[in-house]
Amino acid sequence: MEVMQVLHMNKGAGETSYATNSTVQSNIISTAKPLTEEAILDIFNHVLPESVGIADLGCSSGPNTLLVVSEILDVIYAKWQQLGRPCSPEFRVYLNDLIGNDFNNVFGSLPAFYNKLKEEKGSEFGPCFISGVPGSFYGRVFPSKSLHFVHSSSSLHWLSQVPSGLESKDGRGSWNKGKIYISKTSPDCVLEAYSSQFQKDWSVFLKSRAEEIVGGGRMVLSFMGRRSTDPRSKESYYQWELLARALMSIVSEGLIEEKKVDSFNAPYYAPSPEEVKFGIYTEGSFILDRLEMFEIDWDGGDGDGDNYDAPPTSSTLSNGARVAKTIRAVVESMLESHFGGDAMDGLFQRYGEMVGNHLAKTRAKYINLVISLVRKV
Amino acid sequence: MEVMQVLHMNKGAGETSYATNSTVQSNIISTAKPLTEEAILDIFNHVLPESVGIADLGCSSGPNTLLVVSEILDVIYAKWQQLGRPCSPEFRVYLNDLIGNDFNNVFGSLPAFYNKLKEEKGSEFGPCFISGVPGSFYGRVFPSKSLHFVHSSSSLHWLSQVPSGLESKDGRGSWNKGKIYISKTSPDCVLEAYSSQFQKDWSVFLKSRAEEIVGGGRMVLSFMGRRSTDPRSKESYYQWELLARALMSIVSEGLIEEKKVDSFNAPYYAPSPEEVKFGIYTEGSFILDRLEMFEIDWDGGDGDGDNYDAPPTSSTLSNGARVAKTIRAVVESMLESHFGGDAMDGLFQRYGEMVGNHLAKTRAKYINLVISLVRKV
Repeated sequence: MEVMQVLHMNKGAGETSYATNSTVQSNIISTAKPLTEEAILDIFNHVLPESVGIADLGCSSGPNTLLVVSEILDVIYAKWQQLGRPCSPEFRVYLNDLIGNDFNNVFGSLPAFYNKLKEEKGSEFGPCFISGVPGSFYGRVFPSKSLHFVHSSSSLHWLSQVPSGLESKDGRGSWNKGKIYISKTSPDCVLEAYSSQFQKDWSVFLKSRAEEIVGGGRMVLSFMGRRSTDPRSKESYYQWELLARALMSIVSEGLIEEKKVDSFNAPYYAPSPEEVKFGIYTEGSFILDRLEMFEIDWDGGDGDGDNYDAPPTSSTLSNGARVAKTIRAVVESMLESHFGGDAMDGLFQRYGEMVGNHLAKTRAKYINLVISLVRKV
Repeated sequence: MEVMQVLHMNKGAGETSYATNSTVQSNIISTAKPLTEEAILDIFNHVLPESVGIADLGCSSGPNTLLVVSEILDVIYAKWQQLGRPCSPEFRVYLNDLIGNDFNNVFGSLPAFYNKLKEEKGSEFGPCFISGVPGSFYGRVFPSKSLHFVHSSSSLHWLSQVPSGLESKDGRGSWNKGKIYISKTSPDCVLEAYSSQFQKDWSVFLKSRAEEIVGGGRMVLSFMGRRSTDPRSKESYYQWELLARALMSIVSEGLIEEKKVDSFNAPYYAPSPEEVKFGIYTEGSFILDRLEMFEIDWDGGDGDGDNYDAPPTSSTLSNGARVAKTIRAVVESMLESHFGGDAMDGLFQRYGEMVGNHLAKTRAKYINLVISLVRKV
């Protein structure tokens, strides 16, 4: 599987689209907001450029894309006003994602976005130039020293490729039979393959950004992670565990072949804080200013905060379907290219039931890491 | 009709797509190639920046989009090598079009394009960063002083809007009944409305680019025009005349209403060299270095140059259908939004017949203007 060709959030704005099923990611953006603000204010304590370069890596398509941009522009412009600067800076906003991303959808919402900026901020603001930059962030994406602030949310847990070394060299097949990510029973070689791919990718990511960000510029990155140093800790893999079980369940019905499951592994990794820090220290271009961890409900919520305080009940079964939809919107492009489209409806229905059963027993959370980095001068 | 929202080349890669029906535009690009080369070489006689900014305005989607980029990169890189520069410049390539353009399609072809660059030019070349910049070029699109060379082909004959003043103020309806562009019988007020909209747009275009292009930077622009100062000259409007007749013909069959035709006018203008020069002189930021005129066959040709030397025969009837397809790929988005999609197949079949009859009598040509401009230092 070529991750860079295959991975994209579900397109359009329909029922299974990412645009319609991205509340979890929206919550993650909100959680990271204070760190984003702090980072931006710090940059412009030191420099006040005429033209500010901002990039969002893994921008996806849907309401979250321009929400992030909007928040970043707000903070920068408020800083300029607070300093009593006579002119707004020029904003260069780069929206990056893999080539399969639905950029047409993002671009379609730009006229309304520009109008809103003009209405809310007046004609003094900007100009603001938004462009789409397709390509993998595991490599150079932007011109040298063109950026002041880089944001990325819910993207860096995707690896550049499925780790190599998950297949036995003696032809005995997969080391990770019946699983699609690290699991409780994964042998050490699977853990090592994943961890080593993460370190490789993380290092390339940092090196690439180091070329693109000006000295004193900053990144705020949030992605799935884990608290424990043990990659077999349940909080870091359980959504994949259930998805593997759902796949095996439709295997038992003959809808897909078992060897198809054996040969599929998610290009995903939820690193520990130590692994993240190690990569930053080793690569050497950035200083880690902040690292925080947040718990995020599997269920992104429905805008009604109350239900988070209630004990889990059988009514959470319907939440299973909702969680399954948020996962489907993210992983379907990969699963479809491997297992074929026909299996998808059945798979995610089964998955929804399994997630619902799990949520009826426990309140499941993702661990989200947010880090704030400064480019060394 | 909101031109900026509605106008786009037909998407995808199917039978009626622009990607499949853009041979005319490809020929126009080839025709302008010597001027493009000359302009680029001139820029880099004066400066050798580390980072070169290039924009293609109205990039569309399909084979022409990256063909232009490829040619421009070739010329610049060859210049660097000829000068014996140790390093390639960094290339920033901005692909601009209206928001309705199929950027997903363009982006989908980038991985193959990058691979080709690497193969043909080796690892010394670049880096090259290609981004998509949606928005109307009748206004600012790019950051200040970010560009060295701007190219635009087959785009500037589109106006920012349908000229105002085509409807009578006394409620008697359209001044341009039964027509959709300037025609032999158009009253003077129609000519003035079109010409005045062109001058307004042309001035905004030049003023916007003047902000974005560095001193000594250049533009090569090619677009439909006319030789005569008289806007009623047949070479500048006859493709619209036949399209109006095809529309009126399906009116007579009751497929669309006559008043729908009366209220439609193309946001298009084919200026004379004098009008183009007047706008450049009045705006004042650019020096006109070159202005050339070329004849381009309505039929983009089939790669077999011979048939252009043969006298027109009844076999040219089938060329009618081909010409109709090239026009359909360009104007369908606008016509569909005004007349509805159901009328399109019938309309373009009729149009193809009419064009075929016309081509059987004469060899029809577009007049294409190519100009080369230098940003004053």
